[in-house]
Amino acid sequence: MMATMSEFDDAIATTGPDDSGAYVGVLTHEWGIGEAVNGGLLMALSARATGDASQRAGGHADTLSFSGIFLSPSSPGPVRARPTILRTGRSMSTAQVVVTQPVDGVDVERFRALLTLGDLGRYDEAPRKTVAPPTIPPLAECMSAKDAPPSLSQSGLLQRLDLRLDPATIGWAVGAPSGKGELRGWMRLQDDRAPDALSLLLALDAFPPVVFDLGSQGWAPTIEFTGYVRARPAPGWLQVRTHTDHVAGGLFNEDCTVWDSTGALVAQSRQLGAARFPAT
Amino acid sequence: MMATMSEFDDAIATTGPDDSGAYVGVLTHEWGIGEAVNGGLLMALSARATGDASQRAGGHADTLSFSGIFLSPSSPGPVRARPTILRTGRSMSTAQVVVTQPVDGVDVERFRALLTLGDLGRYDEAPRKTVAPPTIPPLAECMSAKDAPPSLSQSGLLQRLDLRLDPATIGWAVGAPSGKGELRGWMRLQDDRAPDALSLLLALDAFPPVVFDLGSQGWAPTIEFTGYVRARPAPGWLQVRTHTDHVAGGLFNEDCTVWDSTGALVAQSRQLGAARFPAT
Repeated sequence: MMATMSEFDDAIATTGPDDSGAYVGVLTHEWGIGEAVNGGLLMALSARATGDASQRAGGHADTLSFSGIFLSPSSPGPVRARPTILRTGRSMSTAQVVVTQPVDGVDVERFRALLTLGDLGRYDEAPRKTVAPPTIPPLAECMSAKDAPPSLSQSGLLQRLDLRLDPATIGWAVGAPSGKGELRGWMRLQDDRAPDALSLLLALDAFPPVVFDLGSQGWAPTIEFTGYVRARPAPGWLQVRTHTDHVAGGLFNEDCTVWDSTGALVAQSRQLGAARFPAT
Repeated sequence: MMATMSEFDDAIATTGPDDSGAYVGVLTHEWGIGEAVNGGLLMALSARATGDASQRAGGHADTLSFSGIFLSPSSPGPVRARPTILRTGRSMSTAQVVVTQPVDGVDVERFRALLTLGDLGRYDEAPRKTVAPPTIPPLAECMSAKDAPPSLSQSGLLQRLDLRLDPATIGWAVGAPSGKGELRGWMRLQDDRAPDALSLLLALDAFPPVVFDLGSQGWAPTIEFTGYVRARPAPGWLQVRTHTDHVAGGLFNEDCTVWDSTGALVAQSRQLGAARFPAT
């Protein structure tokens, strides 16, 4: 094993592939949120393993699209990612990955995902159309997650990430959600490891649930998540916007867009989540 | 086999499951677009088969989320959908489906998808937040796909669907794309079969590629597609809006929202597609 250079690289490192084609890593409370481990970290870990398996099969390494369904919350301990390369083409490869954890000696599936892989260098050109980032106040005027109540700020995830939220979108933290269903802010890894295609998968799922801005509280589990990596990000802070269009029957979509420090759109995602709202 | 009541129900009908758990249907030029068969029809066919398999396993029948990757274009002829039920829970079930066609005696994978299934009746309540449909001119002022050049209007798909596009979004049909990257219009099945959760999957992928509005021409294959069904639609015309945020390196996202005849948001999708642009 090579020595790695950041907390994030350490967290998504795996051994493998073993004879069954599986990659094995270890999840820790360091990236925990509540009792679970952040889903974005698992997506990055499994995308990295799948990219390795794809390259070994003559395919591509960079995740272009990642579509996963979440079957059970992951917890600290060993984790196994088993990629299957479905096709290696000229410009893209396709794969599936199944992620499990042993529970009482039985492999329990946490999630599975379908991936399209390619070479992000191919897409590194001026866009024909794009969307500029929203105006987010300067870092010094944003609220750090470190100012959150201890129940949140002491979670491992919020100690690994440096999140700075636009004050206009955090009324919910003091019981006054805006009702707009939108969050905006800055993000980087706490140790300032530069963003890349893998850490973008983490960034797409690292903000608080957007339904907090509509008065929802507590855990908002992801049911389905699809992320697209559109370009390699430049070094520096990421700019992030999440919003929801439709919240009904306890389900909501959360769309996330990530721009790099130059203002280039680098990643997009949509997820379907489940939310609880206090009785009114 | 029961007699079915519409062209659409006939097209997504299958026999099965056979001993291997597979459902077999037949694709025809009737739902073709170019040489291929419309992807939305295949998604509906496979979602129907997966819902049946889920119910047989004690799970849910309605597709809530459908995430697919497309490996090769489908063609007229027999098609096989093999669902695997991953979990049946109290409120949701999860499944995978692999869709193949025989080519020279070998099963070739067309696409595979991950599904979340539930009971749409559970989500039938007033939304806490939603987005209203855009203002689309009355049907009589919209352009029918039947007015398209014969190369398009003679495709099977455009004879099965009644599409009426907002004239403001079809400049591309006469060589003058708006450059906005947005299409709007009305849609129903030609035989006026009422929309339901399955036909919404078709509706989410039935419009011309949104990049036509940016000057792209020709086939724009889907790489990844994720659709969410948010509510059962009321009878009548569907209202549809597609738009793209980011087009670069020949890849684009296409977001589609579908509202029913009452203006209720009933389905959402995002897909990653590949587009060609004429040299300038």
